Amino acid sequence: MMKNPDKLINLNEFETLASQIMKRDLYDFYAGGSCDEVTLNENIEALQRLLIQPRVLVDVSQVQTKVSVLGRTLEYPIMIAPLAYQALAREDAEKSSARAAASAGLGYVLSTNSSLSLESVAESAPELRNRHLWFQLYIVKDREFTKSLILRAHSAGFTALCLTVDRPVWGRRERDLKTGFVLPSDLKSGNYPSGFAGSRNSSASMQVETALTWKDLAWLRSISPLPIVLKGILHPDDAQIAAKEGVEAIIVSNHGARNLDSTISTIEALGPIAEAVDGKLEILMDGGIRRGTDILKALALGARSVLIGRPVIWGLACDNEQGVTNVLNLLCEEFKIAMTLSGCPRIEDINKSILFKR
Amino acid sequence: MMKNPDKLINLNEFETLASQIMKRDLYDFYAGGSCDEVTLNENIEALQRLLIQPRVLVDVSQVQTKVSVLGRTLEYPIMIAPLAYQALAREDAEKSSARAAASAGLGYVLSTNSSLSLESVAESAPELRNRHLWFQLYIVKDREFTKSLILRAHSAGFTALCLTVDRPVWGRRERDLKTGFVLPSDLKSGNYPSGFAGSRNSSASMQVETALTWKDLAWLRSISPLPIVLKGILHPDDAQIAAKEGVEAIIVSNHGARNLDSTISTIEALGPIAEAVDGKLEILMDGGIRRGTDILKALALGARSVLIGRPVIWGLACDNEQGVTNVLNLLCEEFKIAMTLSGCPRIEDINKSILFKR
Amino acid sequence: MMKNPDKLINLNEFETLASQIMKRDLYDFYAGGSCDEVTLNENIEALQRLLIQPRVLVDVSQVQTKVSVLGRTLEYPIMIAPLAYQALAREDAEKSSARAAASAGLGYVLSTNSSLSLESVAESAPELRNRHLWFQLYIVKDREFTKSLILRAHSAGFTALCLTVDRPVWGRRERDLKTGFVLPSDLKSGNYPSGFAGSRNSSASMQVETALTWKDLAWLRSISPLPIVLKGILHPDDAQIAAKEGVEAIIVSNHGARNLDSTISTIEALGPIAEAVDGKLEILMDGGIRRGTDILKALALGARSVLIGRPVIWGLACDNEQGVTNVLNLLCEEFKIAMTLSGCPRIEDINKSILFKR
Amino acid sequence: MMKNPDKLINLNEFETLASQIMKRDLYDFYAGGSCDEVTLNENIEALQRLLIQPRVLVDVSQVQTKVSVLGRTLEYPIMIAPLAYQALAREDAEKSSARAAASAGLGYVLSTNSSLSLESVAESAPELRNRHLWFQLYIVKDREFTKSLILRAHSAGFTALCLTVDRPVWGRRERDLKTGFVLPSDLKSGNYPSGFAGSRNSSASMQVETALTWKDLAWLRSISPLPIVLKGILHPDDAQIAAKEGVEAIIVSNHGARNLDSTISTIEALGPIAEAVDGKLEILMDGGIRRGTDILKALALGARSVLIGRPVIWGLACDNEQGVTNVLNLLCEEFKIAMTLSGCPRIEDINKSILFKR
Repeated sequence: MMKNPDKLINLNEFETLASQIMKRDLYDFYAGGSCDEVTLNENIEALQRLLIQPRVLVDVSQVQTKVSVLGRTLEYPIMIAPLAYQALAREDAEKSSARAAASAGLGYVLSTNSSLSLESVAESAPELRNRHLWFQLYIVKDREFTKSLILRAHSAGFTALCLTVDRPVWGRRERDLKTGFVLPSDLKSGNYPSGFAGSRNSSASMQVETALTWKDLAWLRSISPLPIVLKGILHPDDAQIAAKEGVEAIIVSNHGARNLDSTISTIEALGPIAEAVDGKLEILMDGGIRRGTDILKALALGARSVLIGRPVIWGLACDNEQGVTNVLNLLCEEFKIAMTLSGCPRIEDINKSILFKR
Repeated sequence: MMKNPDKLINLNEFETLASQIMKRDLYDFYAGGSCDEVTLNENIEALQRLLIQPRVLVDVSQVQTKVSVLGRTLEYPIMIAPLAYQALAREDAEKSSARAAASAGLGYVLSTNSSLSLESVAESAPELRNRHLWFQLYIVKDREFTKSLILRAHSAGFTALCLTVDRPVWGRRERDLKTGFVLPSDLKSGNYPSGFAGSRNSSASMQVETALTWKDLAWLRSISPLPIVLKGILHPDDAQIAAKEGVEAIIVSNHGARNLDSTISTIEALGPIAEAVDGKLEILMDGGIRRGTDILKALALGARSVLIGRPVIWGLACDNEQGVTNVLNLLCEEFKIAMTLSGCPRIEDINKSILFKR
Repeated sequence: MMKNPDKLINLNEFETLASQIMKRDLYDFYAGGSCDEVTLNENIEALQRLLIQPRVLVDVSQVQTKVSVLGRTLEYPIMIAPLAYQALAREDAEKSSARAAASAGLGYVLSTNSSLSLESVAESAPELRNRHLWFQLYIVKDREFTKSLILRAHSAGFTALCLTVDRPVWGRRERDLKTGFVLPSDLKSGNYPSGFAGSRNSSASMQVETALTWKDLAWLRSISPLPIVLKGILHPDDAQIAAKEGVEAIIVSNHGARNLDSTISTIEALGPIAEAVDGKLEILMDGGIRRGTDILKALALGARSVLIGRPVIWGLACDNEQGVTNVLNLLCEEFKIAMTLSGCPRIEDINKSILFKR
Repeated sequence: MMKNPDKLINLNEFETLASQIMKRDLYDFYAGGSCDEVTLNENIEALQRLLIQPRVLVDVSQVQTKVSVLGRTLEYPIMIAPLAYQALAREDAEKSSARAAASAGLGYVLSTNSSLSLESVAESAPELRNRHLWFQLYIVKDREFTKSLILRAHSAGFTALCLTVDRPVWGRRERDLKTGFVLPSDLKSGNYPSGFAGSRNSSASMQVETALTWKDLAWLRSISPLPIVLKGILHPDDAQIAAKEGVEAIIVSNHGARNLDSTISTIEALGPIAEAVDGKLEILMDGGIRRGTDILKALALGARSVLIGRPVIWGLACDNEQGVTNVLNLLCEEFKIAMTLSGCPRIEDINKSILFKR
């Protein structure tokens, strides 16, 4: 029995309905992690293991949810994570999800492997342009092409380059190997001449550069003044290098548990990373965020914002732009309640002292 | 197959029978916690994880279960927690449960959202008046009305004000969102002019004051000489402030896991709180108490008494006042056995040294 | 499908077959623990959590399994624990199990609540008399009667008094409350004039003395020169008192998890107790022993011998004396293999260094 | 529904298919562990509990998987573990698996209880001869025969003696006791005159020497110049003795959880052992390796190579030599991805710093 998409009360219900609506192999393509999905489960369970000790008798009549990320204000510490091939879920998906983010005052990171061109997505959500609109980037072997993309993104009003650093090669996504799911041959790329960056059937020049090192950041800087956000940091030592190299922000991420199975959960990686960088750069986190309290925990451990991925797909599958809007609103509402009930009316009240340590 | 309510042998069996007797959505209204019910389970499981190391060859021919709370003696360290809208479970429920508490020599905390007037409940259990009869209070936006309630409670023989501090707003009780349960529009409030304090359909002036802070305790003191018991403390720092502010007692509580999901269990919060206040105020605890050994553990970690909530509803649903009496008697009996078999014949024998630390 | 009792390959299979053979309520009477059976499970699981780090290239061509307990030699560190009302499982059960212990060169502790007289059991297993034959004792309110029992036990060739100290009152055995199991009114006691010591329907004078303290040991000493073994120690402080009081041995036990639920497992209690007494008295352990490796672990943590209870009942139920013999032989064989494969050919090789500490 | 052996995507799928293809008792013979299979599960679960913190922005365009073991190079840190009685799974199984190892550039350890003669196996895989071809040895009571075997192995091109030290006697393999599985009476031994070394029906002189100690290594040295690899070390103290005795390598192993149940998992034993030997000998590990990340974890904790056992049997059962080849290729491929995605392009980059410590 399917629920009406208007009646869904939390993000897990969105996933359940999406799994009923979508073709099974496509659902599995988005829902799955790599190999045994140890990390996929850890992302969720490590968040559930982390418990809160709320404060009371704090004036919570005014709860201020705004955060500053890269110098710009988000209404809530929530951004939409880069998600490739969204056209599989819905036509014009990137535009729909960008508009939903824009309406909610949240941030949006467009996947380099968008089905729509970066320009068209930027145009569809003008409130985001020159604000919280980031472009997720792989540096592919054809550096000139990569450069052209960066310049296009800059022109189109994207305000940061979100360089994915944890995916030099694909992980083993065994659900796809079992269902036989492959990208449809007629699936269009919005940004690449033929196929997608780093996908199995793209050309050699569009493969992700596996020789990428910290030194290549200088090359990025030489092309564009946009701030650099490194996505896929899990080790405190890498976070420290990023800080030393002047990187503006990092995203603590394990690629949605889709690449190397059995990595640490992102919430457990976050705390030591925040301690290691000691405020020298901004930290975001994705992976397993399904509840307002998950966001509270991430902020308490040092993140400025979280990103959500799969729930956006479930929103699209259930009800297109309205579905994404509902997903975002639920999460915003839950986060505001979490701030209120934990006695943290201001973002700066949220810190480790409200987390329980055994 | 339903058991006869006379034959129930423990509190869990009362819940099982109640779940068979009650309408499903009403059972869920009482049984449920917020969101994913992580904390609901933690309250139970954290108690089960805590193990006892009993002492032997202690004279247990006389087991003394009496405790002193706020200067008055309870026969057992058990009180009935404030429970809103009990009329949903049984007509005259508050009177029945108050009489059951009175017969057993235990304490009773009347919910501000009683279906019956505080005066009528007080009259129904005269043994409790001016003794272990407490009034649970929300401070609502209409301070004059709140003041009138306090004065009424004082006049009626209530001996303490139990101010709930962990519920400035409602948590997400998703079972109700799923079943569609709402308070019946004709449900009567015993104490409020129309509707209930802080319920979703009560008037603006009857909404809970979200700007409440420690400073408002002075206002309470200015109205009434009754001792103040803060209900909903989970953080040692708040417990310390309470002690410094001269609060007479606190209840370590997470609102029955009904408000902010993923808070720490009350039994795990209790120990550090007791250490923090170091005897400067009295500590009570609710949340997950189902066994006599649970009470023993709470006392060992520093509580003077526990409170039970849901099991009272199950008792009412199963067999009205007799059901509550049976619930209380089972718990008292189990607690006495627990004292005997742990080699703690006097309340003061119960301390951390009988708990196992891994 | 029931297995042939000759084909059973481990103690768990004995339990499975017994549960198929016995009337359900009787099986539950023996198998059950108190309340939620948290401790019943803990006894087993704590043993399973404890892991072994074997040694290699040790000459294990001769494995010496003999141990000395109270100055006498057991072929293996295994004794049969006192088990009340064995006639429920089999006629002449105590004689059968005593003979099985005798044949295997193991020890036997007769329950004070034997269905047969202590003299008749002692006569049935002459190899045990004046050797590893202990008498389990409750001190009942009628001290003269207790004294007469002690004198009888001494005369009959029992060599130690095993005083149970953890059962001043009965725990709540809820399986019995559910099944309605009660001791049959015509069940005969071998040692008590009418009924059994401390059973629910025995006379007031035959109730267990609840005022018993360490001082009463002097009274025991005044009656009999038999060494005293205290059964039911779980706290290191009590073990230290026992050592100071000159008690010859203690049994780390939680009464088979049948009395106070949610006590610590015996294997977790054992280590700190052994450290506390530091060799000043002998330590035995019961509770959850089902495997040869369980015995190895108990010895590594400081026990001289273990006792087994329920598996003896399963042996009786499955195949009477032969069943018990098979149970004991399996356990002896497994223990010998465990010594061999852990590189501990002598009992004194077994110590904490072969246990894994996380 | 059985999958085509060509379509299997990971080692667990090989096991599933093998369990469908093989006779149940034979599958259980290989799959089973001893007693309650606590250690069998621990081997797998302890690996899953260990989490990775990958590094990023490392040049992984060249991933070098070669390792040196006993001075010779393996293409990947994977060897085939000694597996007795492989003829039960497939005719000529040892030749097939040796050829598969040879093709993949991996190592091969022939069981002393090979169904084929050691010479014939060596001849079948000439690429292995005088390279990564080891002979697993029991020292049986007939020392002259043992000596002859060693000399034969040396002549045939085996380059190390892998002496199993953790199996002086058989563990209780209860699946076999339940299914009634016994080695077929007509099963041929390739190396022993009649029956196999140490099997239940072999002659007394072919029983494993239970009096074996560290001193016997001198006897081995007197017979053969081949390096000695001790298989079955779990205790750091034994590892230290091995180092002091000049043993060339050890295999951290619990005999595939087939001998003493409730021993520590091999991955948990590995770290402290590596610290204890501090590079003075080479360390290998087997037990529970099913994924490329498992190999990465073993290397991070100090192993030079892992060995795999059961998956080779599943490969043989599913598709003979091609099945083993596919198993090995999957594991090599996964390991290479694991190196790439953990930012460790060289074997020497793999160390404890990429493992998460709670």
